Amino acid sequence: MQLIDGKKISLQLQEEIAIEVKKIMASGIKQPHLAAILVGNDGGSETYVASKIKACENVGFKSTLIRFPDNVSEEDLLKAVNDLNNNDDIDGFIVQLPLPRHINEHKIIEAIKPSKDVDGFHPINVGRMVLNLPCYVSATPYGIVHLLEKYKIETTGKHCVVIGRSHIVGSPMSILLAKNTELGNCTVTLCHSKTKDLISHTLKADIIICALGIPEFLKGNMVKDGVVVIDVGTTRVVSTETKSGFKLKGDVMFNEVAPKCSFITPVPGGVGPMTIASLLKNTLLAAKKEIYK
Amino acid sequence: MQLIDGKKISLQLQEEIAIEVKKIMASGIKQPHLAAILVGNDGGSETYVASKIKACENVGFKSTLIRFPDNVSEEDLLKAVNDLNNNDDIDGFIVQLPLPRHINEHKIIEAIKPSKDVDGFHPINVGRMVLNLPCYVSATPYGIVHLLEKYKIETTGKHCVVIGRSHIVGSPMSILLAKNTELGNCTVTLCHSKTKDLISHTLKADIIICALGIPEFLKGNMVKDGVVVIDVGTTRVVSTETKSGFKLKGDVMFNEVAPKCSFITPVPGGVGPMTIASLLKNTLLAAKKEIYK
Repeated sequence: MQLIDGKKISLQLQEEIAIEVKKIMASGIKQPHLAAILVGNDGGSETYVASKIKACENVGFKSTLIRFPDNVSEEDLLKAVNDLNNNDDIDGFIVQLPLPRHINEHKIIEAIKPSKDVDGFHPINVGRMVLNLPCYVSATPYGIVHLLEKYKIETTGKHCVVIGRSHIVGSPMSILLAKNTELGNCTVTLCHSKTKDLISHTLKADIIICALGIPEFLKGNMVKDGVVVIDVGTTRVVSTETKSGFKLKGDVMFNEVAPKCSFITPVPGGVGPMTIASLLKNTLLAAKKEIYK
Repeated sequence: MQLIDGKKISLQLQEEIAIEVKKIMASGIKQPHLAAILVGNDGGSETYVASKIKACENVGFKSTLIRFPDNVSEEDLLKAVNDLNNNDDIDGFIVQLPLPRHINEHKIIEAIKPSKDVDGFHPINVGRMVLNLPCYVSATPYGIVHLLEKYKIETTGKHCVVIGRSHIVGSPMSILLAKNTELGNCTVTLCHSKTKDLISHTLKADIIICALGIPEFLKGNMVKDGVVVIDVGTTRVVSTETKSGFKLKGDVMFNEVAPKCSFITPVPGGVGPMTIASLLKNTLLAAKKEIYK
């Protein structure tokens, strides 16, 4: 069994990006610039955005944080999006989700200029992904594909079972892995809460992407020997083992499943660290105008 | 075994549309208007476009056919698309595919205003379909979902195997049937040319969507008793049985498979007739501004 070290790969990717930033700036292209819009003071969102800003510094990007109170109007938020769309110094930007209930999230996301939508959440980027056209792939799926590639995990002809059909992970993963591309070509089965006899699917899988958000859901008796397991779950559960009183749990019962695996991602330190690197990579692509000319 | 009569359902749907057209026009809304751009003189394309125009007449739509020679420039075609985008009398329009090789098909499709893209091929409509947002679903997938609905074929919790991953049928079908909607909620396995041991998947399927374009590919020994089979194939093969010397063949070896089915679509007369009805339905939605306000 080999552990997939997402932390290491993420740092490698960030180093590569830092080198590329120096190179393009030396060639006269301006410093890549990522902006983030943060609404309210949700603890999780604060942490995520702070680590994105920090990562920008690490790789030599410029970054801008734009904050709004919880009660910001949809109109004001749309105006901020529009300002960023029209600001030539901004290469890409994100609106940290979730947004307060009185704001139509889809309306905000569709207002983002597709060429600056480095989160890859705009329908046009999702559609381009499906159609195999140049696009920003969203962070988690992008990170997972990158991990499979780095560990030279063969996908062509393999049977991949994706558990969970979220718009953020499960659904795009099922699409990416089934595509006629070198990093795709899997036979993909997408399972979810309405799936009957789930174990009959997981037992046949060569690769399992576990992204349903239920801690330790995938048990040892549900997988076959030699399987590759990608654990996307990160649920904070109360724990007496840590100082903070909390622990991050994946969707996989690691102790049972890992011994049967050829490869497995740990939680933490697997898929999680890849998401920020993926966002930086998309921002670099935006700065280089590689997706939208 | 029950035959799914696509011809009958398509005519029913067209009658419903015709009634609706009269109703909305009586309420003061203008006559729905579909335009089609046809490049060159390909026999298949001529036939398809002619039958779409004819169907428009049947349901009381206005229609416009715009023809270009084979050697039309991309620029001129983009200009025609732009004119239709800006013509308030046109509710929706299609560009008949395939286009000549010197034209970038994706560029033309992305130039269509999403609110008028009644073929549902624009990436934004594909993305909205994935994200469960209001959109135009392309004709064949729309038609298949409608057939399943009309015949009250349960999808929730069923295992559906889709064979073929084309952008026109297989890929969108796999997405639609897996979605968390009343007409979705299947566990979907998407199979294709790189799939190993295909029969192990098809033998377990409750529903099979056969859309790979190889005549009589699906044999009787590949399906279980009680399966629902949707045959999307329509390959013209030489035949001594018909006057024309040709016959339409589906992707399913009908004589072997049909006796094992609970439901099956014939070829011709199954999925085929539904596509035009679906295009008309999308045009009606466009005229009523139900998808894009």
